[in-house]
Amino acid sequence: MRLTGLSAFPITPADAGGRVDRPALRRLVARLCEAGVDSIGLLGSTGSYPYLTREERRGALEAALDEAAGRVPVMVGVGALRTDEAVRLTQDARDAGAAGGLLAPVSYTPLTDDEVFEHFATVAREGGLPLCIYDNPATTHFRFGPALVGRLSPLPGIVAVKSPGPEPEIVAAHLGTLRGVVPEGFSLGYSGDWNATEALLAGADAWYSVVAGLFPQVGVGIVRAVRAGDAAEARRLDARLRPLWALFREYSSLRVMVACADLLEICHAVPPRPILPLAAKARRKVAAVLADLDLG
Amino acid sequence: MRLTGLSAFPITPADAGGRVDRPALRRLVARLCEAGVDSIGLLGSTGSYPYLTREERRGALEAALDEAAGRVPVMVGVGALRTDEAVRLTQDARDAGAAGGLLAPVSYTPLTDDEVFEHFATVAREGGLPLCIYDNPATTHFRFGPALVGRLSPLPGIVAVKSPGPEPEIVAAHLGTLRGVVPEGFSLGYSGDWNATEALLAGADAWYSVVAGLFPQVGVGIVRAVRAGDAAEARRLDARLRPLWALFREYSSLRVMVACADLLEICHAVPPRPILPLAAKARRKVAAVLADLDLG
Repeated sequence: MRLTGLSAFPITPADAGGRVDRPALRRLVARLCEAGVDSIGLLGSTGSYPYLTREERRGALEAALDEAAGRVPVMVGVGALRTDEAVRLTQDARDAGAAGGLLAPVSYTPLTDDEVFEHFATVAREGGLPLCIYDNPATTHFRFGPALVGRLSPLPGIVAVKSPGPEPEIVAAHLGTLRGVVPEGFSLGYSGDWNATEALLAGADAWYSVVAGLFPQVGVGIVRAVRAGDAAEARRLDARLRPLWALFREYSSLRVMVACADLLEICHAVPPRPILPLAAKARRKVAAVLADLDLG
Repeated sequence: MRLTGLSAFPITPADAGGRVDRPALRRLVARLCEAGVDSIGLLGSTGSYPYLTREERRGALEAALDEAAGRVPVMVGVGALRTDEAVRLTQDARDAGAAGGLLAPVSYTPLTDDEVFEHFATVAREGGLPLCIYDNPATTHFRFGPALVGRLSPLPGIVAVKSPGPEPEIVAAHLGTLRGVVPEGFSLGYSGDWNATEALLAGADAWYSVVAGLFPQVGVGIVRAVRAGDAAEARRLDARLRPLWALFREYSSLRVMVACADLLEICHAVPPRPILPLAAKARRKVAAVLADLDLG
């Protein structure tokens, strides 16, 4: 699994009981394949992975991988609170045909660096899939320092890290620090759509994008401009999306993307309870931004 | 369920695969019943509840409730990431004979106050057990303000709150704030053993104690002294335990209590992976403190 360019993270359409809407997920995956994204991030945080049972995740895997097979590589969120469960989820993803696993150190009791190291080493050894380290302190409450990334990155099967996007003024330094501790060819990528364009311009290998999970053309356009060396065009495309970034920051990208999919009648899903759909006022703000942006 | 005095929280002895050691759990519960604790907090954070499957929790429930039946009321941790799962776990606890449920707002995507309100209201309505609100921001990363406790406390079936113990100099003010927003008779209690004695002296209804889960006499002694109005004796008993409190703060009470149970040959359990048993050096520090304190 070579993680470069645009990795698009769709929502996992489901009803209030967690039942995955497979036809809707297939339609979302088909949109991504047709738009030419470089990879798909199935069952990411925006894809509600920690809220779904192993069976429900299997249902999502089957639908998405059947649709994407032979077209776009799929990386699958395999995080779980327990090490043995993360191993089983990784094996399920491998058996379903995934190209890689995205592993976050989901926590309840706060974890030490040594515990996270052993957790990742075990899943890499026993799961049977290349892994991307998923650093998402806003949800896992664990923060990867460069020292731990440096310890994990030479392990066989650990191939990439997805970090939260730093503010533009420090992203080059962040990339430089990580490059100094990982092997040649190890992929360094970022999530946090609002800081992604500057991260790509600074030399990041990959953008793990929530917006592209529903509006892949938006992400493809920015990545193409960066690849063509047209920083001004990339920044223009990014600046246009600022109203959407503001919604992501205010309401979380998961809640906003579920509302977007519903408003545009792409699919009618709800977030997993206890997460509630956006209230009427927030939903109107999302509708107004969508009408302005015409993201198709 | 009237939560007052000492509520003792045992570990849930299990092997690395999560298999609960039922005979060992029965022995732990028997110790608590014999020591005269006021209630037992089964499957609390120290009892590893979020790491156990529904089936594994059922095994723990059966063993513990069979042992405690007719002797001491048992409150059971029923928290889960999903609302429907928390309802099912509460119903399981009710069916097994528990006196109440302890519900934490376990989170991945950070939750809003409204989401936590709806989550608790649903579990209270559908779970069939009186609930204690479990406020534990160190693990759930959600913080209950007085306004939310005030909204939840009048709901039928919500009877208590377990708050993290504030520092001694502010506990009276904290209690006063909460008393001002909850109905008469609503139980206000604290966890965080190192601040518990001062909380009881300030008028808290209950101490949710980790140390008493393995060493119930320690907790019973402090609560008796407080009830007898002997603040000096309560403080003397508490001060003696400072070396243990330091270990709890440094290594987490879960890791320390598992090591204590092992060192004293009360039971041989391991924490749920990815949590690792204490390393040799930390274990030696625990052994030295145990030898000094002679907690029996």
